Amino acid sequence: MTGSIICVGLGPGDPELISVKADRLLRSALQVAYFRKRGHKGKARELVEGILNTNATEYPMEYPVTTEIPHTHPDYGVMLHNFYEEWQQRLSALAQQGDVIVLCEGDPFLYGSFMHLYIRLREAALVTVEVLPGIPGMVGCWHATGQPMTWGDDILSVIPATLPAQALQHHVQQADALVIMKVGRRLPHVKAALQAAGKLEQAWLVINGTMAGEQVMPLTEAPAHCPYFSIILVHGHGRRPGSLD
Amino acid sequence: MTGSIICVGLGPGDPELISVKADRLLRSALQVAYFRKRGHKGKARELVEGILNTNATEYPMEYPVTTEIPHTHPDYGVMLHNFYEEWQQRLSALAQQGDVIVLCEGDPFLYGSFMHLYIRLREAALVTVEVLPGIPGMVGCWHATGQPMTWGDDILSVIPATLPAQALQHHVQQADALVIMKVGRRLPHVKAALQAAGKLEQAWLVINGTMAGEQVMPLTEAPAHCPYFSIILVHGHGRRPGSLD
Ligand SMILES: C[S@@+](CC[C@H](N)C(=O)[O-])C[C@H]1O[C@@H](n2cnc3c(N)ncnc32)[C@H](O)[C@@H]1O
Ligand SMILES: C[S@@+](CC[C@H](N)C(=O)[O-])C[C@H]1O[C@@H](n2cnc3c(N)ncnc32)[C@H](O)[C@@H]1O
Repeated sequence: MTGSIICVGLGPGDPELISVKADRLLRSALQVAYFRKRGHKGKARELVEGILNTNATEYPMEYPVTTEIPHTHPDYGVMLHNFYEEWQQRLSALAQQGDVIVLCEGDPFLYGSFMHLYIRLREAALVTVEVLPGIPGMVGCWHATGQPMTWGDDILSVIPATLPAQALQHHVQQADALVIMKVGRRLPHVKAALQAAGKLEQAWLVINGTMAGEQVMPLTEAPAHCPYFSIILVHGHGRRPGSLD
Repeated sequence: MTGSIICVGLGPGDPELISVKADRLLRSALQVAYFRKRGHKGKARELVEGILNTNATEYPMEYPVTTEIPHTHPDYGVMLHNFYEEWQQRLSALAQQGDVIVLCEGDPFLYGSFMHLYIRLREAALVTVEVLPGIPGMVGCWHATGQPMTWGDDILSVIPATLPAQALQHHVQQADALVIMKVGRRLPHVKAALQAAGKLEQAWLVINGTMAGEQVMPLTEAPAHCPYFSIILVHGHGRRPGSLD
């Protein structure tokens, strides 16, 4: 019996926000893989605690490197290349025994690490690969603020904080509704860009949106350091038919 | 007994992509409201066929006007104002008897009509209002193309096709990864903007993504007219660590 590799989008964190289909797959899965940083449990794995089948065999895929050397260092690319190649082969071999479920926070096709495996698995074409959409983390975060995100003709810009400072500033300036992802240690650059665009006062910070330990606050009240699962939002204020203003 | 008003994001269309929480609420709901255009069943209502509790009382909220008069006509604003005010009052009265579930396609806070009721319900403060996130339609649509949407430092721009032609063109030009919403009768303007930006050949059209009757095609093969539930996508091609190019 040959199985498939199925990457499952877990949504923003709250297990109740997992899709009906993903929930069913997780409860019956016997082989489960997920990315994690060395020495950590892995956020995706934490999110399915109590849902995963207790008979599942787990395959943590540990990044050989995350922030120890800069992304621009030649070794960085080589190490990640080898890592993805290795797991493409290992997951394909595991799928010979039955389905392999790969966990992914949010939606897998929105800046998800699985995409790097996905293109390799598709190219190798040894097994069937399926990907299930999930509610993106940003959607959980804007709900955590209790305010609608985009109205009428608003444009929504989703911007990685990892952009060079000047590009960050340019795009923050241009945007209507705004989501800034991957904030972490880029917090000072993001704040500077929002300040320069006159948007600092309207910005919200959401840490661990819909997860245990969720924190929602005006960005002006942000702690000096914020964790990896942090998103900054500026809500849109577009055309509102029926508002009579 | 007083109930709440709970707006439920239904996701892109496939009932299996509804969240575990929303699915449970829909199966037990006894009062269900949804927007629709006069003379139509309503897309949100169609999506929950077979899931809704058969004992539910339904409250279709029929728009007094959609595209019969232009959005800029003074009557348009007045008619919608009265419509939202009326339903704010009616739903609040219904909630006195128990929970009222409001259906919304995709995610309610992403260009959803419920937002117009939401701000009025919150202001009136007569009943508790809750909103459940859903997988946005665009996420279902990019999965329908089978290709990852954003990589590394890609910016994602979500642009309403209803923007004036010049603004549309400007923003389409600037974008990395691109989602164009509310395409419908604006298809020719969108095509012109993509053509001018040199992006027409990379663009995809997804009609009724993840729903019955889903169609996915290169935009160059689009039919002359496309329905309301249509999204145009251009995938991002950002930095890909480990790709060795
Ligand atoms: C590599 S991206 C992956 C995004 C994911 N695939 C998604 O759809 O949300 C990781 C970034 O997502 C953001 N993120 C995802 N879920 C979040 C949540 N629940 N709360 C706060 N930030 C979140 C953070 O900005 C984090 O740095
Ligand atoms: C008023 S907006 C509401 C968006 C919704 N709240 C969401 O999160 O997707 C309506 C537009 O959403 C897009 N849309 C939503 N779901 C879709 C689907 N499954 N397939 C194609 N287009 C969709 C279409 O562009 C449509 O014109």
